[in-house]
Amino acid sequence: MKTELNSLLLESTKIIESKLKEYMDAENGYGLSEIMSYSLFAGGKRLRPFIVLESFKLFSHSNDIEKALPYACALELIQTYSLIHDDLPCMDNDDYRRGKLTCHKVYGEDMALLAGDSLLTYAFELIASNDKVSDRSARLATACLAKYAGHAGMAGGQMVDLKSEGKINSYGELKKMHSLKTAALIKCALVLGYLAATDTPSEQVIKDLELYGENVGIAFQIKDDILDVTSTEEELGKPIGSDQKNGKTTVFSFMTMDKAEKEMKLLIDGAIDTIEGYYSADSKFRALVELAKYMIERTK
Amino acid sequence: MKTELNSLLLESTKIIESKLKEYMDAENGYGLSEIMSYSLFAGGKRLRPFIVLESFKLFSHSNDIEKALPYACALELIQTYSLIHDDLPCMDNDDYRRGKLTCHKVYGEDMALLAGDSLLTYAFELIASNDKVSDRSARLATACLAKYAGHAGMAGGQMVDLKSEGKINSYGELKKMHSLKTAALIKCALVLGYLAATDTPSEQVIKDLELYGENVGIAFQIKDDILDVTSTEEELGKPIGSDQKNGKTTVFSFMTMDKAEKEMKLLIDGAIDTIEGYYSADSKFRALVELAKYMIERTK
Repeated sequence: MKTELNSLLLESTKIIESKLKEYMDAENGYGLSEIMSYSLFAGGKRLRPFIVLESFKLFSHSNDIEKALPYACALELIQTYSLIHDDLPCMDNDDYRRGKLTCHKVYGEDMALLAGDSLLTYAFELIASNDKVSDRSARLATACLAKYAGHAGMAGGQMVDLKSEGKINSYGELKKMHSLKTAALIKCALVLGYLAATDTPSEQVIKDLELYGENVGIAFQIKDDILDVTSTEEELGKPIGSDQKNGKTTVFSFMTMDKAEKEMKLLIDGAIDTIEGYYSADSKFRALVELAKYMIERTK
Repeated sequence: MKTELNSLLLESTKIIESKLKEYMDAENGYGLSEIMSYSLFAGGKRLRPFIVLESFKLFSHSNDIEKALPYACALELIQTYSLIHDDLPCMDNDDYRRGKLTCHKVYGEDMALLAGDSLLTYAFELIASNDKVSDRSARLATACLAKYAGHAGMAGGQMVDLKSEGKINSYGELKKMHSLKTAALIKCALVLGYLAATDTPSEQVIKDLELYGENVGIAFQIKDDILDVTSTEEELGKPIGSDQKNGKTTVFSFMTMDKAEKEMKLLIDGAIDTIEGYYSADSKFRALVELAKYMIERTK
């Protein structure tokens, strides 16, 4: 990763974690907040909150990131809730995530279910309580988060995934699933950052942010599929070849490596084209451009 | 039930169901909306939305209930999500609710989990999309719903319930659990109705509405305990004596029938005292007063 992008991401992670701690420390929740915190501080990369902050910086004239932090943290809560529920025995039934026991393995399924529900609910409380933004911004951000996280967004994508198990028939269908399961929250991050900067959003900007998020999200998934066959276990930090072993539909179910790499490059070029024009000519570092490039350059 | 209260409730149920249908018909959700609708239209009494509408009418000068309907429906979505998740095998493991198969028995646990998550998320979308109210009202309503439904409210109450199984040591602890598990959403209904009527809420009014909701919610639970020992199976429509059979902590773990009836009456008198003053002297029918009375008069 480019040193600049890396240090920016590390700095953002520090800010986000400290803010998340502040939010969670203020809560009691009858033992629930301890369980919520267990998963919230289980080593997430905080990529989505980073995108919220970078989108905010791109569109804001104030650079007061306190305006965007509640939205960024809310999105991380949503991401964490979805992982907790995804790991449950009735879903993916995973015992470990990032080398740590999953929430239900430590606290039991009932507690994990409630902790997920509570994180999802608390996300909306953080948005509504963002007193650095206007009422209009808070309302638009609430609608945005609900739309991208709900049945027409991320949850819808999990539904498509569950229903289509082993029966994805085309690259188009695979893209649709990734668009909902992965790209939805990336789009959400971009729009939330924009809404922290303005409460009179332009439809064109939102369309462009969605296009960038869509392309980056799908390219990310293609890169995952590629790494699963080209990387080494040592480099990736997890077993390789697991997709084929698990009979998972990947991009290689529909195209060759050469074609997949071209498709990924096309998506990233499109994302960069879309976002580049929003950076001013004298901007020193174009984080969202570099992030898009990193999506295909990454080795893990 | 008083004929007037009954016909008002029936009328409200019709309005709520038609609005809920309108909301759900507009959605696709990749098959998720069908599952969400299954539980949403499984014969709920729509008591909480009714309270939203009646609270709105009490404080509004416009009587345009379209302003309050999105909030009322949002609360019903929350109620439904909590029932779906509560019925799951890792929670209460119930196969039937109101004589119908529970969500996971029809669609599977994974689908029920996602449908619950999606209803919870969609509730916030309905609040944010309420275009008959100000941005301020929508923001306050979002915060209100999140607070009462989340880890410091209803979800927290489920946590207390799970953790204390068979170990509730005092009437005070029992009341605390009912306050969170049951009264939280009743308080929420009252405050949401008020927030649909005004976006400059008075702290005193909110305190009074919370007191009314607290008392009515706890009295409701005491009445449930009483009916479980005094009613007949025919009248109640479900087996009686089940609390004792299941070793459940009830009000009778801490007091006699006589004392329980007095306690319930005291709570309801307090609720009526609190709300009565808000009705104008010439109001024809005081729905929230009558509702409080009904809580102890009901026979099922």
